[in-house]
Amino acid sequence: MVKVVLLGAGNLGYHLTQKMLNSTSIKLVQVYNRSITKIEYLKDKVSITNNINGIIPADIYILCVSDNAISEISSHLNFPTKLVVHTSGATSINDLKSNSTKGVIYFPQTFSKEKNVNFTNIPICIEASTSHDLEILKNFSKEISNNVYLINSEQRKVVHLAAVFVNNFVNHLYFNAEQICTKNNVPFEILHPIILETVQKINKISPFDAQTGPAKRQDTKTLNTHKAMLTSTQLDIYTLLTKSIKETYDEKL
Amino acid sequence: MVKVVLLGAGNLGYHLTQKMLNSTSIKLVQVYNRSITKIEYLKDKVSITNNINGIIPADIYILCVSDNAISEISSHLNFPTKLVVHTSGATSINDLKSNSTKGVIYFPQTFSKEKNVNFTNIPICIEASTSHDLEILKNFSKEISNNVYLINSEQRKVVHLAAVFVNNFVNHLYFNAEQICTKNNVPFEILHPIILETVQKINKISPFDAQTGPAKRQDTKTLNTHKAMLTSTQLDIYTLLTKSIKETYDEKL
Repeated sequence: MVKVVLLGAGNLGYHLTQKMLNSTSIKLVQVYNRSITKIEYLKDKVSITNNINGIIPADIYILCVSDNAISEISSHLNFPTKLVVHTSGATSINDLKSNSTKGVIYFPQTFSKEKNVNFTNIPICIEASTSHDLEILKNFSKEISNNVYLINSEQRKVVHLAAVFVNNFVNHLYFNAEQICTKNNVPFEILHPIILETVQKINKISPFDAQTGPAKRQDTKTLNTHKAMLTSTQLDIYTLLTKSIKETYDEKL
Repeated sequence: MVKVVLLGAGNLGYHLTQKMLNSTSIKLVQVYNRSITKIEYLKDKVSITNNINGIIPADIYILCVSDNAISEISSHLNFPTKLVVHTSGATSINDLKSNSTKGVIYFPQTFSKEKNVNFTNIPICIEASTSHDLEILKNFSKEISNNVYLINSEQRKVVHLAAVFVNNFVNHLYFNAEQICTKNNVPFEILHPIILETVQKINKISPFDAQTGPAKRQDTKTLNTHKAMLTSTQLDIYTLLTKSIKETYDEKL
């Protein structure tokens, strides 16, 4: 059974800890976090520590820490024959400074502690410096998810960037739509069906073919009505995205 | 049984025609379209016409035409005791120029002919000039959907505007993410799970609380890496949405 030490107690660290604690084929042997209070709830289930020099032996060390802590924390992990991996979409495998073999397991997913996740369908993008290590990571990842992809550091940056568009930016548009509704006493729930349909549509037709609305039609009257209803920042967003939609269809139609 | 004439053969007109042809409580008696070829496929099931002066008697006349055709087409509908309604999110009830009673049934949903829809969960926003007509529209709408809302012209504009954010703009972000993936030989399907999770999350937590990512964290290193990977228009979108996310959390945290 593969032994794992997990470092970090953020959103991903939290969910991955839960997943491994419930696994019959992965043995989580220790959780490290800079602040012990955030992981004290685990003390009856697994070894916990806030001492980076007190890390115990394992097969894989998984860093679920912020991007700019990866180099520093990994530099303390000197296990020449063991595998140290980070979980960052935007960070090269070479940023790992451990004296160890190295790899990456990246989950292109959004994690919040308040919302449970089912790892089975979450893609895992894996990378390692040797084919032997890649095999270890592949076997580990298949215990977590059914969707494992071999993705190098350059491709991973692309996945991460695209995920910012479809998650971070999309969620911010939801936030603005909710603000618009609330300000005008309209229940945001009216929009839940169209939000869901927007997603389901792209399983059937491409986003290019799925586009509808006043920006694509260049329905100037509606565009002007809308613009008059927005805050300054919302107006900037509306104007720019409308322009980008127009340009997309001017070019391609 | 309520008798309906539907005018228009666009995306909504197409799906609403199908729905009414399959209804046991609504009798679709005629479909009008300016071009007869687009509705010829219906000729064995219902009366069709491209002559606006050849519209036959019914209880409700539903205009599924483009916003800027509503006034002109409705001006030909002189049925003083009957109900003429449009289906536009961005158009006031007063733009109907028929000699008739007037109303609106607006579906805040995205329709494409290539993708079937299930009307049962699609919200219908209804408005009418009298409570008697509102009752007629409510009864009609309940045959189509389980989610019927009374929404006046001002509120409907708000719903329509918010729908542009969560559908038109979100879909355009999907389009850009797909472009980013394709250009770099990464399969877009890797992102389908995070796209779905982004939607499911807002059923559990507010978009404000659901926000994650480098813009919220102001992770400058990642933001700069991303910016170097984008086309000019994508860079504008990235920069503006990142700024708007930053401002949202600067203000509220």
